[in-house]
Amino acid sequence: MDEKKRVGEKAADFVEDGMVVGLGTGSTVYYTIMKLGQRVKEGLNIQGIPTSVQTEELAKKAGIPLANFKDIEQIDVAIDGADEVDTNLDLIKGGGGALLREKIIAKAAKKFIVVATPFKMVEKLGAFRLPVEVVPFGAELTEKHIRELGNDPILRLFEGKPYKTDNGNYIFDCDISHTLHTKELEEKLNMFPGVVENGLFINMSDIVISLDQEKNVVLIDRNHK
Amino acid sequence: MDEKKRVGEKAADFVEDGMVVGLGTGSTVYYTIMKLGQRVKEGLNIQGIPTSVQTEELAKKAGIPLANFKDIEQIDVAIDGADEVDTNLDLIKGGGGALLREKIIAKAAKKFIVVATPFKMVEKLGAFRLPVEVVPFGAELTEKHIRELGNDPILRLFEGKPYKTDNGNYIFDCDISHTLHTKELEEKLNMFPGVVENGLFINMSDIVISLDQEKNVVLIDRNHK
Repeated sequence: MDEKKRVGEKAADFVEDGMVVGLGTGSTVYYTIMKLGQRVKEGLNIQGIPTSVQTEELAKKAGIPLANFKDIEQIDVAIDGADEVDTNLDLIKGGGGALLREKIIAKAAKKFIVVATPFKMVEKLGAFRLPVEVVPFGAELTEKHIRELGNDPILRLFEGKPYKTDNGNYIFDCDISHTLHTKELEEKLNMFPGVVENGLFINMSDIVISLDQEKNVVLIDRNHK
Repeated sequence: MDEKKRVGEKAADFVEDGMVVGLGTGSTVYYTIMKLGQRVKEGLNIQGIPTSVQTEELAKKAGIPLANFKDIEQIDVAIDGADEVDTNLDLIKGGGGALLREKIIAKAAKKFIVVATPFKMVEKLGAFRLPVEVVPFGAELTEKHIRELGNDPILRLFEGKPYKTDNGNYIFDCDISHTLHTKELEEKLNMFPGVVENGLFINMSDIVISLDQEKNVVLIDRNHK
């Protein structure tokens, strides 16, 4: 847990007074939110945009004021975890089921910061199954399209029934371990009418915060690799 | 109304015994459904897959047995209307709000037949605004992305509130009259995380049924133009 805490808390350094901050979902960004809550109590003036119902509740408890989309001009920085981060700083996200909202926020943010303990850092994406969010209507047809791509979709279940996202959709967890061109796969998946979004975050992260082999916190910057 | 009736009824000729039939939504395909209902009463054995709640009710009234996605192997033919059909047989659909389900069914069908009165036939798509279905979460951000493409999104309203699709999403009606490359636009729109689907149907229709200048029913086949 200490690894997650150190990585998560470091991300709070990127938040400055007056910023609108996208707040991710997960066990590492949890520590970012706790840290930001502490800084808010000390006088930091920010507005949070949560990526899930779960984070919304957490941010409220931590005392972080939440913004309404209607009232903001832009998102200055978004901070979130990942299920996998490869050497290009591309990500698989969505293990927690919030990939759609997370991607909307990350896409809109001027700067997107990822917090990832060494366990999440990989050479190549795909040991983790890629979550693909699909509309319930005709999900059997969409499943067939994904299967034809060779990605072996498995419907995510919760208590024996299809898991439902915050947006009321299903998730198929897909095997992409044989995929060489993730950007191409991302586009192909999104062009299926029933696919709402997928958990590939290609060319989106600006900075990844992790730990090196000596367990020092390191910042990996896309523009200064 | 006679034009819609003649075009709509003609489409029913493509339906054969034992087929699974995707049933579109709108005032022309209405006549296809009525005609199919009549043929079912005369002994035709088919299963319908409706693209909207409205069509589901209509098909039930017409006496067409409805299929469950779980129980079908494939959709043999889908029949639907369009808001615009251009000389490449590409379409704008979604004026009625059912574009997502219509696109899922059309994509899955072995043959996709479009019924369109001459009024819907255009040289170039874009006099009709393109419907783009977006998730309500962060719709203001998605609107901004679409605006940056130059497509002037207008949120569709119903009784003063945002119109909601059968899938619980919003629709932005977008000006694409200046767009030269519709295939490119379709892909760009679908890559925005908040966009679920858009009403461009490029390279999807197999046959368009319309009327010529002498008001004779004509079949325009993509493969024999």
